[in-house]
Amino acid sequence: MPRVGVCLSGCGVFDGSEIHEAVLTLLALDQAGADAVCCAPNMDQAVVIDHLTRNPASGTSRNVLVESARIARGKIVDIAQVRASDLDALIFPGGFGAAKNLCNFADKGPDCTVHPEVERLAGEMLDAGKPIGAICIAPAMLARIVGRRGMHPRMTIGNDKGTAAALEKMGARHVDCPCESFIVDEAHKIVTTPAYMLGTGPASVFAGIQKLVQEVLRLA
Amino acid sequence: MPRVGVCLSGCGVFDGSEIHEAVLTLLALDQAGADAVCCAPNMDQAVVIDHLTRNPASGTSRNVLVESARIARGKIVDIAQVRASDLDALIFPGGFGAAKNLCNFADKGPDCTVHPEVERLAGEMLDAGKPIGAICIAPAMLARIVGRRGMHPRMTIGNDKGTAAALEKMGARHVDCPCESFIVDEAHKIVTTPAYMLGTGPASVFAGIQKLVQEVLRLA
Repeated sequence: MPRVGVCLSGCGVFDGSEIHEAVLTLLALDQAGADAVCCAPNMDQAVVIDHLTRNPASGTSRNVLVESARIARGKIVDIAQVRASDLDALIFPGGFGAAKNLCNFADKGPDCTVHPEVERLAGEMLDAGKPIGAICIAPAMLARIVGRRGMHPRMTIGNDKGTAAALEKMGARHVDCPCESFIVDEAHKIVTTPAYMLGTGPASVFAGIQKLVQEVLRLA
Repeated sequence: MPRVGVCLSGCGVFDGSEIHEAVLTLLALDQAGADAVCCAPNMDQAVVIDHLTRNPASGTSRNVLVESARIARGKIVDIAQVRASDLDALIFPGGFGAAKNLCNFADKGPDCTVHPEVERLAGEMLDAGKPIGAICIAPAMLARIVGRRGMHPRMTIGNDKGTAAALEKMGARHVDCPCESFIVDEAHKIVTTPAYMLGTGPASVFAGIQKLVQEVLRLA
């Protein structure tokens, strides 16, 4: 049974992991007979957003690992404890948490920095030739990691021109892609799908994520 | 396009909606071409649980509607604003929120009381002959609502003897059921599936929820 890391970034599209993308990744892995290893950085969220009003919630903070545990039903570990040798593949669901907590792409764009443990684990996977999947906005974070290593993989975040230009500035080669499909870079074993960068509901998002998961497992 | 209410109870298995069950309900509805109308009561949660340690988080409170908005990606309304005439069917995902926020079954067992707006909307659906689906522990809450109306539908919460006995005490007739299946009471148009009362992962839970959604839509 392949073991696949799922790196979460909180619990909620506006300040953490996009919940549908995270759950649908876990569904596709379970349907494919893979074992999900949920992990997240043990850090305060960059921000807490009231998802009803979409305004920042003042005077409160939440921890990325603790909130991610909601999606993982409590079965989650600090990413600092995870090594590439524990995994056959690694997947990053999207949500603003991938661009605000796992890295600061939402603020800094192509000059962003990535959480050190996230960059360390992704780097170990790349060094080991193990596949990485990235969903929605998470390819922006992954583009920064691979770009700093001099790699230029094919990736997608859908068809948003500004975000695609930022990916290219970090060294990736952007390819437009519909929600229900994925882009694979065979040489670097990197698989990406746009999900809610383009998707309008869970069915089309799941179609793309299920294909991404199958491709990641094929490469593992 | 049928409109199906999805009544949430927070965001996290231990103090709100079971996130997988909620998302997989939304997935099954979208796959079936139905329009989900997410709603939740505007009230403080009974408790906030740290999902990493599973201990109560002291000195903090969260609002059921605001937290449910995380699962609904912001597209959610106060259940007080929803009428049965707006809907073709109504579904309750599970999680402890269904037994702690939507009602107090977790504390009071068969003597529980149900949130007045939840009981009002469910009652309107029953009066209108529109179907109701209940997942995981949510059938306990629904058993209380229908029992107070003198109805004795067939329902399942899986095979837990104690919870089944509580359902029967409230007037329902409990039927054992595996995770991947469902129980339907045609006369009362009530459909139930055990989900994480029995399930060990999202694939088996989705199998049961997808069948429940299809049956609810058939009855609508």
